[in-house]
Amino acid sequence: MDATIDVLVREVGPRDGLQNIATVVPTDTKLGWIRAEFGAGVREIEVASFVPPRLIPQFADADSVVEQALRIDGLTVVALVPNLRGAERALALGVHKLDYVVSVSRTHNLKNVRREREASLQDFERIVQARDAAGLKGRTVLAAGLSTALGCSYEGRIAVDEVRRCASFLAEAGAEELMIADTVGYADPRQVREVFQAVRAEVGELPLAAHFHDTRGTGLANVVAALDCGIRRFDASLGGLGGCPFAPGASGNIVMEDLVFMLDSMGLRTGVDIGALLAVREFPASALGADSLAGAIAKAGLPRHYLDAAQRAALESSPERPAGATGH
Amino acid sequence: MDATIDVLVREVGPRDGLQNIATVVPTDTKLGWIRAEFGAGVREIEVASFVPPRLIPQFADADSVVEQALRIDGLTVVALVPNLRGAERALALGVHKLDYVVSVSRTHNLKNVRREREASLQDFERIVQARDAAGLKGRTVLAAGLSTALGCSYEGRIAVDEVRRCASFLAEAGAEELMIADTVGYADPRQVREVFQAVRAEVGELPLAAHFHDTRGTGLANVVAALDCGIRRFDASLGGLGGCPFAPGASGNIVMEDLVFMLDSMGLRTGVDIGALLAVREFPASALGADSLAGAIAKAGLPRHYLDAAQRAALESSPERPAGATGH
Repeated sequence: MDATIDVLVREVGPRDGLQNIATVVPTDTKLGWIRAEFGAGVREIEVASFVPPRLIPQFADADSVVEQALRIDGLTVVALVPNLRGAERALALGVHKLDYVVSVSRTHNLKNVRREREASLQDFERIVQARDAAGLKGRTVLAAGLSTALGCSYEGRIAVDEVRRCASFLAEAGAEELMIADTVGYADPRQVREVFQAVRAEVGELPLAAHFHDTRGTGLANVVAALDCGIRRFDASLGGLGGCPFAPGASGNIVMEDLVFMLDSMGLRTGVDIGALLAVREFPASALGADSLAGAIAKAGLPRHYLDAAQRAALESSPERPAGATGH
Repeated sequence: MDATIDVLVREVGPRDGLQNIATVVPTDTKLGWIRAEFGAGVREIEVASFVPPRLIPQFADADSVVEQALRIDGLTVVALVPNLRGAERALALGVHKLDYVVSVSRTHNLKNVRREREASLQDFERIVQARDAAGLKGRTVLAAGLSTALGCSYEGRIAVDEVRRCASFLAEAGAEELMIADTVGYADPRQVREVFQAVRAEVGELPLAAHFHDTRGTGLANVVAALDCGIRRFDASLGGLGGCPFAPGASGNIVMEDLVFMLDSMGLRTGVDIGALLAVREFPASALGADSLAGAIAKAGLPRHYLDAAQRAALESSPERPAGATGH
């Protein structure tokens, strides 16, 4: 991770934020959004999902979005892949990082990708082989996500042992990063500590990322719990896009602007200019309507006299900086 | 604190939630709300503010609300008092607990109650004398609140030393409980830890309560930080009422329903039935409109298979229960 930042905030809006939205956002709007958010300082963006276009028309332009995003110098371009076939498309395009996702909940995995969880886990081994066979080891990072690791809308609570077992399998299969996801927004801070500590104990120094949804208002509270466990990589989406289309107004992913504000206030450097970030909202808003975007900072504005230079310097040099700020 | 609960959640909606709202809520609606929320398990409610009715017409019925709330057996009835005169009214009625509030920010105190902070602090000594002279020591609890302790919309950040100094003064003057308030929703979790730890070191075992606003999305994240400091008393308001009337949709106090959901999920007993609590929303909604109420749980619903009996028992007996769960 870049030594000038303490926490990596990753934008997943163009993928997770849009995947449940029926309105197809024009390719140029997606790219304007991606470029503007890179301009605001976000260095890693999940730009598309390589699913069959007949399943999710929103991603029919995945190839084009990826190709043009790859021209942004300094941006880590990430794509979600649900299976080997998707991974092959992404590898062929030269995506920097692949997110392969398996649901820890067996029921969710069956409903989501129509196969057993174990079959999905084994597919990851084939993706590692495909990446290596293509001579892309050391160039294309393989990340693996554990969906529904903190709860499932079919099964409810998920046993920590199940999460640990899946994490262990993926790490041994060659995952270079693990992402633990609260796909449906069920998690609480205590559970976050329990699960992240268990996975950390299982996989050692492997980078761990957290992917929280704010569906039940606990998103940033869960970030605090994960920070306490040394987690320094967080997914978020601009305006909290990604809510369920059947619950209008319910927030989806944690709101990028609010996440950056909180981290920034805590003296944790994200590299993101929050003023510039707020201006990026115009891109998704132009396609989806301003009402589709959530966000407290966008509504309330920054605090008065927000972190002047002296306060910022004091925060960043303080010995009270949260432990592990330069960690994973 | 009742031994059957781990965290005391206190409803402040009928006071803080309504004080900036121009629509006067009928006395019967306020009392219906208070009774229903007591019925859902909330054991302490700030029911009114003893300010001059010409300043805030919403509280013209304060005497009547207090008198009738005092008939609810088992409810701790709290009233806010901004000065000695308000305290005398509250003491005469037999309110169980008085919340006397001083702003740590000198500018905010001047604007809010038109006198110097030191004059406000000294008034608390007179309130203690008045309570004792009335023979109410041991019967009427005197709590003191430190407004703008975590930021001020005039002064920005507030020095921790200023908070500590005010806390120390109020404790020595006889405060039996201190409440630290993020009046304008500026706080971040790191700052919360810093301020609460500093105050705790200053005032020893005195009960400390936290009063957070969710204006910038960090409300529940700040609760997590305060829990880590051993804080076990939290203010909240149903539907997050209390937002600034000039920022429509911006949340005010942290949302009681979401707070209870989070604590409950963490295995911290609040004594509140969340289903019954959600039903209480109909009272403020009937007077103010459903749109005036925020809340993620109200929108998204509880998780599937939410804490069945076995899960709840496991959580509550777990050695992993957060440290200090039976503390302050």
